[in-house]
Amino acid sequence: MHLETYLSQKKKTVDARLDQLLPKRNRYPQKIHEAMRYSLFIGGKRIRPVLTIASCEAVGGRGGAALDIACAFELIHTYSLIHDDLPCMDNDDFRRGKPTSHKVFGQAVAVLAGDALLTHAFGICAEAKNIPEKTKNKLIALIARASGSEGLIGGQVVDLDSEEKDVPPKTLEYIHTHKTACLIRAAIEAGALIGGAAAREFRALSAYGTLVGLTFQIADDILDIVSTREKLGKGIGKDIAQGKATYPSIDGMEKSRLILRRKTEEALHALSVFGKKAEPLREIARFIAQRDR
Amino acid sequence: MHLETYLSQKKKTVDARLDQLLPKRNRYPQKIHEAMRYSLFIGGKRIRPVLTIASCEAVGGRGGAALDIACAFELIHTYSLIHDDLPCMDNDDFRRGKPTSHKVFGQAVAVLAGDALLTHAFGICAEAKNIPEKTKNKLIALIARASGSEGLIGGQVVDLDSEEKDVPPKTLEYIHTHKTACLIRAAIEAGALIGGAAAREFRALSAYGTLVGLTFQIADDILDIVSTREKLGKGIGKDIAQGKATYPSIDGMEKSRLILRRKTEEALHALSVFGKKAEPLREIARFIAQRDR
Repeated sequence: MHLETYLSQKKKTVDARLDQLLPKRNRYPQKIHEAMRYSLFIGGKRIRPVLTIASCEAVGGRGGAALDIACAFELIHTYSLIHDDLPCMDNDDFRRGKPTSHKVFGQAVAVLAGDALLTHAFGICAEAKNIPEKTKNKLIALIARASGSEGLIGGQVVDLDSEEKDVPPKTLEYIHTHKTACLIRAAIEAGALIGGAAAREFRALSAYGTLVGLTFQIADDILDIVSTREKLGKGIGKDIAQGKATYPSIDGMEKSRLILRRKTEEALHALSVFGKKAEPLREIARFIAQRDR
Repeated sequence: MHLETYLSQKKKTVDARLDQLLPKRNRYPQKIHEAMRYSLFIGGKRIRPVLTIASCEAVGGRGGAALDIACAFELIHTYSLIHDDLPCMDNDDFRRGKPTSHKVFGQAVAVLAGDALLTHAFGICAEAKNIPEKTKNKLIALIARASGSEGLIGGQVVDLDSEEKDVPPKTLEYIHTHKTACLIRAAIEAGALIGGAAAREFRALSAYGTLVGLTFQIADDILDIVSTREKLGKGIGKDIAQGKATYPSIDGMEKSRLILRRKTEEALHALSVFGKKAEPLREIARFIAQRDR
């Protein structure tokens, strides 16, 4: 399979559906809908939605059935970026090469646009077609847990709390597994649920999700140091400037790359219960470890 | 019936359940759970949860079945207060006589605590017991709509946008019906759904909800002018200071009181299809119009 083609086709499908699921730009009150769409369509590889779809297909499900839930993950991811970028949080002015929400719309609208995307994500899940009612509630519970105070938000809290501090490896791992891996794993688990995964398949995909989520964050930390502003579309070297705990800052660059490779191997190993249908998931794991932006 | 006893009993039930539904204070990361609990248990009459339960009982349902969903409304209400109080929004330092979340925990944690309460509210809905799976998804869709960009958040956006401007009555009504009435109506509609309301009953309760939501906001606007800081537990005169559009600022105090009385009458009239079981809802409508805090 050719991953780039696969990714760009899925991205197109996801983007088209996102456009349908979001209130139109000119819908009253216009400003909030402009802001929601601005951050959602500013770019991005749609990795989480693609993982949901690929995971659903890996267990023999129909990717189309997972599309709306896949989109919900992108909404949640986008909301978390908008809020993380706020001056009171990471204070980032650029994201994906464009000014961040609060730079364009002001802080108040940025906070509200994040709130609205998060809220809409759950509405989309509840109204998704072609998924049994019970499964939808399971998915909503899963997503709420993964993005809540003991998931994504928990990771962000500990991250903020760890700035300018000597952070033990355990705390660093908490930050990474929660700030990034939780939602990525949930996206994969959601696809498995929708596709009707057997218990053994679900466990395998869940393990894959944790590992891939972690490699995603390690790669991000490395890129913050070795990449360029042009490639990343956002300021680089910010982690160091903010005194953030990252894998390179604690373990050094070489060991970080080693951990990245090892975790990727483990992620691939977790997929060994699957045949050819899991090929996209394998390619994505390799892609995450090797990406340069 | 004796409303005060009714309200205080229901509040006790709601508070006990909220305590069970929220992660414990000492749960890691402690700071976010402390912040979530701080704002949730700072006080408040639990009007929205009580309305959900009372509405469920008005159509012959068991109030206990509505308890978790009732609590979810309080979480959403609380999240909206935390975010509204932020410096970039209404910039309020006090709420219910206590310092607001960002004054105690800082802005970053306040934003995240709001996010976490909103997220957890949907998780609670999805995991609520004793409600059919299909109804739960209906409730989640209802809540997402009422609190989203064309509901509560929409109202807040237009409100912020209207500061220091001459606002036509239509815009004022949009702000009020969306910022306040949407969630209150949804709380009542949710109770009706859980209680298994017939179509005619649902319509009556929905109309009651819109009207009571509106009277709630008008009373709030009036209190901002005539009450005292001690009674309200927050700064007064803020609407005028911030150049906010309110009923008193547009229609004058006398006409505002008249509208308040008339809308309360209409709300009571909407309940005429119900017998004695709707007595608490009637008392609450009268209470909202007459409250002094």
